[in-house]
Amino acid sequence: MQTLGVTARQASRVLGSTPTAQKNQALDAIAAQLRAQQAQLLEANAADMNNGRENDLDAALLDRLELNEERIEQMALGLQQIAGLPDPVGEISDMHYQPSGLQVGKMRVPLGVIGIIYESRPNVTADAAALCLKSGNAVILRGGSEAINSNLAIAACISRGLEDAGLPTACIQLINTTDRAAVGALITLSEHVDIIIPRGGRGLIERISNEATIPVIKHLDGICHVYIDAQADIDKAIAVAYNAKARRYGICGAMETLLVNQSVADQALPELLRQYSDKGIELRACERTREQFGDQAELIPATEEDWRTEYHAGILSIRIVDELDEAITHINTFGSHHTDSIITRDIDTANRFLREVDSSSVMLNASTQFADGFEYGLGAEIGISTDKLHVRGPVGLEGLTTRKFIVIGDGHTRP
Amino acid sequence: MQTLGVTARQASRVLGSTPTAQKNQALDAIAAQLRAQQAQLLEANAADMNNGRENDLDAALLDRLELNEERIEQMALGLQQIAGLPDPVGEISDMHYQPSGLQVGKMRVPLGVIGIIYESRPNVTADAAALCLKSGNAVILRGGSEAINSNLAIAACISRGLEDAGLPTACIQLINTTDRAAVGALITLSEHVDIIIPRGGRGLIERISNEATIPVIKHLDGICHVYIDAQADIDKAIAVAYNAKARRYGICGAMETLLVNQSVADQALPELLRQYSDKGIELRACERTREQFGDQAELIPATEEDWRTEYHAGILSIRIVDELDEAITHINTFGSHHTDSIITRDIDTANRFLREVDSSSVMLNASTQFADGFEYGLGAEIGISTDKLHVRGPVGLEGLTTRKFIVIGDGHTRP
Repeated sequence: MQTLGVTARQASRVLGSTPTAQKNQALDAIAAQLRAQQAQLLEANAADMNNGRENDLDAALLDRLELNEERIEQMALGLQQIAGLPDPVGEISDMHYQPSGLQVGKMRVPLGVIGIIYESRPNVTADAAALCLKSGNAVILRGGSEAINSNLAIAACISRGLEDAGLPTACIQLINTTDRAAVGALITLSEHVDIIIPRGGRGLIERISNEATIPVIKHLDGICHVYIDAQADIDKAIAVAYNAKARRYGICGAMETLLVNQSVADQALPELLRQYSDKGIELRACERTREQFGDQAELIPATEEDWRTEYHAGILSIRIVDELDEAITHINTFGSHHTDSIITRDIDTANRFLREVDSSSVMLNASTQFADGFEYGLGAEIGISTDKLHVRGPVGLEGLTTRKFIVIGDGHTRP
Repeated sequence: MQTLGVTARQASRVLGSTPTAQKNQALDAIAAQLRAQQAQLLEANAADMNNGRENDLDAALLDRLELNEERIEQMALGLQQIAGLPDPVGEISDMHYQPSGLQVGKMRVPLGVIGIIYESRPNVTADAAALCLKSGNAVILRGGSEAINSNLAIAACISRGLEDAGLPTACIQLINTTDRAAVGALITLSEHVDIIIPRGGRGLIERISNEATIPVIKHLDGICHVYIDAQADIDKAIAVAYNAKARRYGICGAMETLLVNQSVADQALPELLRQYSDKGIELRACERTREQFGDQAELIPATEEDWRTEYHAGILSIRIVDELDEAITHINTFGSHHTDSIITRDIDTANRFLREVDSSSVMLNASTQFADGFEYGLGAEIGISTDKLHVRGPVGLEGLTTRKFIVIGDGHTRP
């Protein structure tokens, strides 16, 4: 691991000043290698799938693990897409003259060396590598052990692509052992690794956050809310609240709790409860909701545990509140600071919600399912940060960089 | 500590949406209290000074601990100065329409609750509190035990000022015990404290970084370099290299190592060695410097330990290098990623240095002693971050905030 770290650090110095065109050339070359090596990738993946079946992995995990021609093409396209994004490195901003005559500004630079720890999806190997490469960072990748053969095959394509573009292969390195001790070594290699980004379930992320001595950019739960305000446009409220839950259950931007102002509950809830029930969504509701609407849909009593749960499934909890403050307090107390939306026509209410809800994304009259790097114009993302420091929300190329001060004088000495 | 945390969190919710005028009113009210309570402050400080003398604190520490009329007035003026700075909270930027029709942008918001741990200077109590208040953060302060009486007296003024402005006193709380266990409790109070900022010597900062479970913004050493390039204007090089060391030894932006390109050593070093010697600065030099200039000044052999040392004193290490790459490698290897400057007239060389030196501030033709929040136009600073994440370089009001995404639609559902 020490050797990986040292070579990654050296490669990061090269990559930090590699021209954009050469980085793009490498991304295109890796994409070409993935297409050319399709047979080898499928063969390696078949070995992982066989091992997975023998080890009784569940169907969802096997699905995430599987590569096919279409998924390989998606990976290659993803690389080319990242090649097409603007290069954040070297951007100079805020440059101005100080009274001393010095020019002071900021230059965007790579973070250095990034460690990425992820679970079963082999496409993350290519996606994460590409985002790090484009943002000028060297990366050490550690994928799930069940995908080791697929990941090694993808890593071989990456190495050839880097060579084709004249870049050191140490720019992107895959840990080629499934030994769990390697993770422990990576997350404490503070001399050579600048940041750790875990991608996976809550268990993985909590373990890494607790054990890492290097800063971690993390994404914990996505417990997202929609609050239908007293001044909501009811048609829009119903459309957004249905979409926020029903469009896809499994993404982190899916709504888990619906909050409804008492004064519009009669207008919004009957129709919404009907739509959710028709879709087969299980409903868990507060006492007031059950009293008022228990005759219109099956409403299981919600507990405090429900307010704190990311279902990632066709389950929704519902609570009626008396006023904006109650909604904001509920979200800040039980939410996960991910993405929360208000439906209202009232400017003061909207402003208070946008300002006071302490989440990485706060929305007005829009579905929480929009929480996504592409939808925000950032392009591909490496995850969604629920941390407050450094980067909050979708982490794209810019989130993988930092800004240093540059100061330009003409022989200036300080009096 | 748990109670402090809970009340700080509640206060931070209030402060996050307190209007700028009210925050400024509180800062002015605290300044007025400091002036009105001058006698009480001097009395409390006299008790600390007596205890300090009894405990044989050294003269430098006693000097840092001492309050007098002038220093109290400086504190009050500092508060008013911070009241005069622009409020970073609520700033909306990067707002744009996405193809979906959604408006996406970012809003600057406070971090929440900040813990500040510092050593003997009592003025930090007022300075740090003011920066946190203006940036909308609640703060828990933990000062050095030798200053406990002074700090309690200042904290009393702060509480009265907050009350005068109608703000909760829990916005700014001082830990009123000198028990060391309180520090351990504060830096692991992850539910209620968002970030820890230590201010003090390397020992304090390393201990806190190692033990904290909350993110830490830290400033370790300031091992700053000036590199005199082959294409330097020699007169400017001499002026800057002298100023960078000799103006003040004890600030973190003071140069600790001078790097000189071999091809201009004959032109720059004799005059510089004379000036440094006249000033009484001890010189530690590499073998080549000693061979070539050992007859012109007393040059102690420099060891690798010297390259890694922040002297904070009238000592300078000197090394002759053959080329730019050697200078950059030296700085990135032995420096502390604080502030480094190149003296050159060559554009390509300057660009490479600005880009490749991995420091929070990189300078061209300017003295490293300019590394300072006021000199950069940031106003008062809480410290200089040598970290890469979140904030790098002087940490002013903006560094105490974060940006969340705001997304505005008109009933948008995601297809």
